[in-house]
Amino acid sequence: MPEKKEYKVIGTRPIRHDGVDKVTGRALYGADFHTAGLLHGTVLRSPHAHARILSIDTSRAEAYPGVKAVVTAKDLPAAQDKIADLGEGAVNLKYLCDNILASDKALYKGHAIAAVAATNAHIAEEACALIDVAYEVLPPVLEVRQAMKPDAPLIHENLKTGSMGETADKPSNIASHLQHKKGDIEKGFAEADVIIEREFVTGTVHQGYIEPHNATALYNPDGQLTVWCSTQGAFTVREQLAEILQYPISKIKVVPMEIGGGFGGKINVYVEPVAALLAKKSGRPVKVLMNRADVFEATGPTPASFISVKMGATKDGKLTAAQTRLDFEAGAYPGSPVGAGAMCIFAPYNIENVLIDGYDVVVNKPKTAPYRAPGATNAAFGSETVIDELAEKLNIDALEFRIMNGAKEGVKRADGPVFPRIGFIESVEAAKQHPHYTSPNGKKHHGRGVASGFWFNIGLASSVTINVNPDGTINLVEGSTDIGGTRASIAMQAAEVLGIPAEAVNPSVVDTNSVGYTAVTGGSRTTFATGYAAYEAAQDVKQQMIARAAKLWEVDEKDVQFADGEFSCINGKEEQISFRDLSARLGETGGPVVGRAAVNPPGAGGAFATHIVDLEVDEETGKVEILRYTATQDAGKAIHPSYVEGQIQGGVVQGIGWALNEEYIYNAEGTMTNASFLDYRMPTCLDLPMIDTVIVEVPNPGHPYGVRGVGEVPIVPPPAAIANAIYDAIGIRMTELPMSPDRMLKAMGKI
Amino acid sequence: MPEKKEYKVIGTRPIRHDGVDKVTGRALYGADFHTAGLLHGTVLRSPHAHARILSIDTSRAEAYPGVKAVVTAKDLPAAQDKIADLGEGAVNLKYLCDNILASDKALYKGHAIAAVAATNAHIAEEACALIDVAYEVLPPVLEVRQAMKPDAPLIHENLKTGSMGETADKPSNIASHLQHKKGDIEKGFAEADVIIEREFVTGTVHQGYIEPHNATALYNPDGQLTVWCSTQGAFTVREQLAEILQYPISKIKVVPMEIGGGFGGKINVYVEPVAALLAKKSGRPVKVLMNRADVFEATGPTPASFISVKMGATKDGKLTAAQTRLDFEAGAYPGSPVGAGAMCIFAPYNIENVLIDGYDVVVNKPKTAPYRAPGATNAAFGSETVIDELAEKLNIDALEFRIMNGAKEGVKRADGPVFPRIGFIESVEAAKQHPHYTSPNGKKHHGRGVASGFWFNIGLASSVTINVNPDGTINLVEGSTDIGGTRASIAMQAAEVLGIPAEAVNPSVVDTNSVGYTAVTGGSRTTFATGYAAYEAAQDVKQQMIARAAKLWEVDEKDVQFADGEFSCINGKEEQISFRDLSARLGETGGPVVGRAAVNPPGAGGAFATHIVDLEVDEETGKVEILRYTATQDAGKAIHPSYVEGQIQGGVVQGIGWALNEEYIYNAEGTMTNASFLDYRMPTCLDLPMIDTVIVEVPNPGHPYGVRGVGEVPIVPPPAAIANAIYDAIGIRMTELPMSPDRMLKAMGKI
Repeated sequence: MPEKKEYKVIGTRPIRHDGVDKVTGRALYGADFHTAGLLHGTVLRSPHAHARILSIDTSRAEAYPGVKAVVTAKDLPAAQDKIADLGEGAVNLKYLCDNILASDKALYKGHAIAAVAATNAHIAEEACALIDVAYEVLPPVLEVRQAMKPDAPLIHENLKTGSMGETADKPSNIASHLQHKKGDIEKGFAEADVIIEREFVTGTVHQGYIEPHNATALYNPDGQLTVWCSTQGAFTVREQLAEILQYPISKIKVVPMEIGGGFGGKINVYVEPVAALLAKKSGRPVKVLMNRADVFEATGPTPASFISVKMGATKDGKLTAAQTRLDFEAGAYPGSPVGAGAMCIFAPYNIENVLIDGYDVVVNKPKTAPYRAPGATNAAFGSETVIDELAEKLNIDALEFRIMNGAKEGVKRADGPVFPRIGFIESVEAAKQHPHYTSPNGKKHHGRGVASGFWFNIGLASSVTINVNPDGTINLVEGSTDIGGTRASIAMQAAEVLGIPAEAVNPSVVDTNSVGYTAVTGGSRTTFATGYAAYEAAQDVKQQMIARAAKLWEVDEKDVQFADGEFSCINGKEEQISFRDLSARLGETGGPVVGRAAVNPPGAGGAFATHIVDLEVDEETGKVEILRYTATQDAGKAIHPSYVEGQIQGGVVQGIGWALNEEYIYNAEGTMTNASFLDYRMPTCLDLPMIDTVIVEVPNPGHPYGVRGVGEVPIVPPPAAIANAIYDAIGIRMTELPMSPDRMLKAMGKI
Repeated sequence: MPEKKEYKVIGTRPIRHDGVDKVTGRALYGADFHTAGLLHGTVLRSPHAHARILSIDTSRAEAYPGVKAVVTAKDLPAAQDKIADLGEGAVNLKYLCDNILASDKALYKGHAIAAVAATNAHIAEEACALIDVAYEVLPPVLEVRQAMKPDAPLIHENLKTGSMGETADKPSNIASHLQHKKGDIEKGFAEADVIIEREFVTGTVHQGYIEPHNATALYNPDGQLTVWCSTQGAFTVREQLAEILQYPISKIKVVPMEIGGGFGGKINVYVEPVAALLAKKSGRPVKVLMNRADVFEATGPTPASFISVKMGATKDGKLTAAQTRLDFEAGAYPGSPVGAGAMCIFAPYNIENVLIDGYDVVVNKPKTAPYRAPGATNAAFGSETVIDELAEKLNIDALEFRIMNGAKEGVKRADGPVFPRIGFIESVEAAKQHPHYTSPNGKKHHGRGVASGFWFNIGLASSVTINVNPDGTINLVEGSTDIGGTRASIAMQAAEVLGIPAEAVNPSVVDTNSVGYTAVTGGSRTTFATGYAAYEAAQDVKQQMIARAAKLWEVDEKDVQFADGEFSCINGKEEQISFRDLSARLGETGGPVVGRAAVNPPGAGGAFATHIVDLEVDEETGKVEILRYTATQDAGKAIHPSYVEGQIQGGVVQGIGWALNEEYIYNAEGTMTNASFLDYRMPTCLDLPMIDTVIVEVPNPGHPYGVRGVGEVPIVPPPAAIANAIYDAIGIRMTELPMSPDRMLKAMGKI
């Protein structure tokens, strides 16, 4: 058993610092931002999924009264085929720019073509309608398997990616191919007594955040660009703007407004550069807001995919081989999360022989963006269904089968890394012992299924400064936008170090000029990495406070001890002072105390989850009703258990939506026919039972408190768990997402 | 001669970082602030200079449509006679609160009595007129000598201050009496061959900043109070609000908006607590703006004073004794700058026998506030006129007389401190050698005068954090509001350390939640102390960058040297990398770099100035025309010479206004009859010649670059220098300020 440490703040459930502001409507979101002389920008979008842009005539729009600026791709600095360095990754600059404003081709319905800034949004819309665009409409390619065919219409005429990074002879829609090998896959299958091979299809799914994208930009006459926006990472917006606008990073200030959901979809920029261009051209501040259809059609959903999985095991239940091919839709420009899918697909298991192939394929859909454990859910839908079928064939309990083959410390993943201490087996054990799993399950058309999931989590850079107030509270300055309660989870880590209550920490999420570089809130990194920075900054404060106590008592620093919020003299003098009381005496001991830390911690530590679902299939309508759901997960250490539970519940719910209802429905011309929340069916609370959670704590050795990221992995198991439960209920293996009533009826032979 | 160091950035004249924003109107001042649901607050002010408040009936105002809140002193937490700790000083809490909203008595015309928040400012004004206040009008006391008389009307019935801090038997208007003694004053005068004794009167003068006071306050439902305002110190506003509202300091966030002048007058709060009370009561954000009459009548001018000076010297020109009595008007509540006047009056001179008495006296005028070298100008008007008369009597050149008796390192001031290395004699030498002084002066009614001045300068706490950008620029976060170009002068000190241009520093002045404690911008401390913090924070950055270079080259940190913006390996390897290039490689060497410092430097270092003025007296109108003006001053080290020159010129101009025209004119009822810029006559550029400046640099040993504060001392010499020049022109010693046409004509016997 890992050592149990005693904490005073960590593991408690204080009210989040931003809670009252949010429930009382005081929190300021991007759309709330207002400034003098504000113009409103509207984007003209392509009505075609695939079309060559022959010409754009903006003259009528420019002449329209109230219009202050019209921009097209020509207003972007000439984008050559150079690589843009975005700090956390590199992408082709032309692709990056073309997705902001299309230059030569429109590659999806909704693709931005031009934008207008006017004195109000209505005038801007009217003027957009006066922009004359001549298109040569081309046939769209809307599905990954179609796009990979040799005779498919080409999306990028010069995309010549061959196998494994080489250049191909002729262009295709395949943007990249990756492969991970471990052991000898043929030998592995030869050793197997049972082999299962299946093919799976998943649909295009949106993150469905409540708040649409928004940005307000202001260019000051000295070239200082300020952008207020809704983003998961102010610094990544700064980096993208610097590349897209070819503008010095230090002339850009990004102010992150409160964020109304992101789930990975608010990392890439869309309207931010457009607002900046309009602001530059008009000399005025310009606000650009998306509506819901824009969000669906022109931001980054998670990709549809086609996946084949083949796995083998001995009759004793030992997995001997696993092979997969992952064909992921990148959308209009290269860059699907197929790499992450490939990292995660077989990661929960200790399998000696593995072969993974991944293809990134462009199609005439919006460029995909991260969505909560991007790629892993698609992949796990395949692998965890096959695992279930193997266990069934071998007549081994599905969870027991996972425990028998579970990865643990020292196991090497097919993509390279060797696991440190992880909690996969512990999470499966927790599920296996859970009353949900041990309860009877047998009603007609009721089924129970399980599935596991993995997400590797990331580290990356975070900075924190801490300023001590004279009343013993601290102001904590951070650069991580708070999507899911991280103000609290970061504050608590600083509070623990300093022996003060969480409420004595006053966290502020500030702009890019006012805090050190901090990577995006994503990859389940924030409580881990920014929390780590808070821990280190608090240590810096603690050391300085020790020096102040030493000065006060005229003793050596090494003779001052700090424990439980109290400084005491351990050598000679009988002295003691609390953090609070010492805070009041900083003036007389040398001035204020400011702590700082910047970290880039390597040991993010992977997250594992195992879910159990009970459901009922309505044979008449094909509707699947979730009856009970239990999720176990290794959190490493749950800093604020309520928010860990909330992350698990939120991830499960999104996974259920993905499993049962959510998908982009396209017509033959490539127009999404359900681009509203009425037709794009996300689960509501009426559709769901309470999601039960079990937090397992196997401390991450890469973090001082053992934190692992928790936000992403809970979305991974649901589709597979539900498919397995449907099989349990009606004996049919579903292999296509979503498992919506129509697909269910079709599978049951009812339509 | 002090050692001359070579600097790359310090001493140059880059364009200030906030310059373009200000000249293009982009800078946001408090009145520009807007937020949703904003209410407008208006203050009801006393029409009487001295009156007992018998009752306040707000019922008609509260019932007025559009009114959302009405507040009086009753809405302030009960203010007992306890001492409020404001970090930089302690004051009686009742006085502090009563000056915000009068409780029992109105003590000056314009004293705030009540306030109304309404949906617009007009409704708020109309509602103010509906507040019924019953007053018992009392006779006002408007002048310090009158106020000190035993039978004077009492302003505070329980103010019983005796001599030297003891409690008196019966109440008086004398709030305090201080005394500094050095040597034996009687022996000193006995040794003198010449003794001059004179009495002086100075008027009440306002700082005259362009931007009136303003504040917007918002109480969130969880009790977080945010205040946006124009202030010289966001943290001092936070401290005052915490005391006045009896509210936890950590629940208050103060956002300093851009400031349109302060000169000491924007340290005390006036409308900030009123806006906070109205916001709390209404549940809405409330903005309160002053108009110009409010600023004159109800903020803090510098005090009128009555000063007697007696000095003696031997016939060889050695000063043997100096005695003064300083009677300063505190305004309605105790706390004039008489203490500072007493510290400064004889400080430029090495005199063995000194006796200084100071009295702080309450009168029915607004409570005084700091104004540029507060108290020192009043005092120097007396002492520097007497010095001039002594030099004349002894037939010694006035500047030579100052050099003969000038204070230097090791001399003990009458109030205690011993001078470190100072530059008084150097500043007088510079004046003596200046072509202005050596040029002929002789036209009829043309006169030339000189005077010197001293200001001690202060240190106090400042905090700075520095974040390194990947393009080699840095973001500098500071808490010092920028009145006179300190963004530049602070940034330059960090730039010098890091070997980067001033333009590569991006300074931000942020709110109290986002930076460490930083004392007020005042006391000429900012370039000294916040600059010191910037220097130390840059050193912190430098050390971390050295560690990164060492990591990159796989060498020991001690083998990495930093000079001229380049890191190089000094042991073994031939490696070199610029600050800029290393900044781009922080990700691979461990993450971002954040530097921090918090300082409370003791060695502020005093500032000395010597001025020469040529003027002409119009015998017909009594108008004094300034013909030529030269100011020499020891800046220690001029970080940005243009802004040092600007500070000197600004101080001189304010001193000229004080000398010749500016004064509060009261009628017998205690109403200021010239409360507008039309009638309160400040000099315009048409009234003035170019002010010539000479920066002397005697480095301050208490600062790494030798900085001394420069902002305040230039206001000290002008009244005395002008009085001395008037004497030179027409042979009359003026002893009353301002030396306005009417007083001149009276002195010349023309009226």
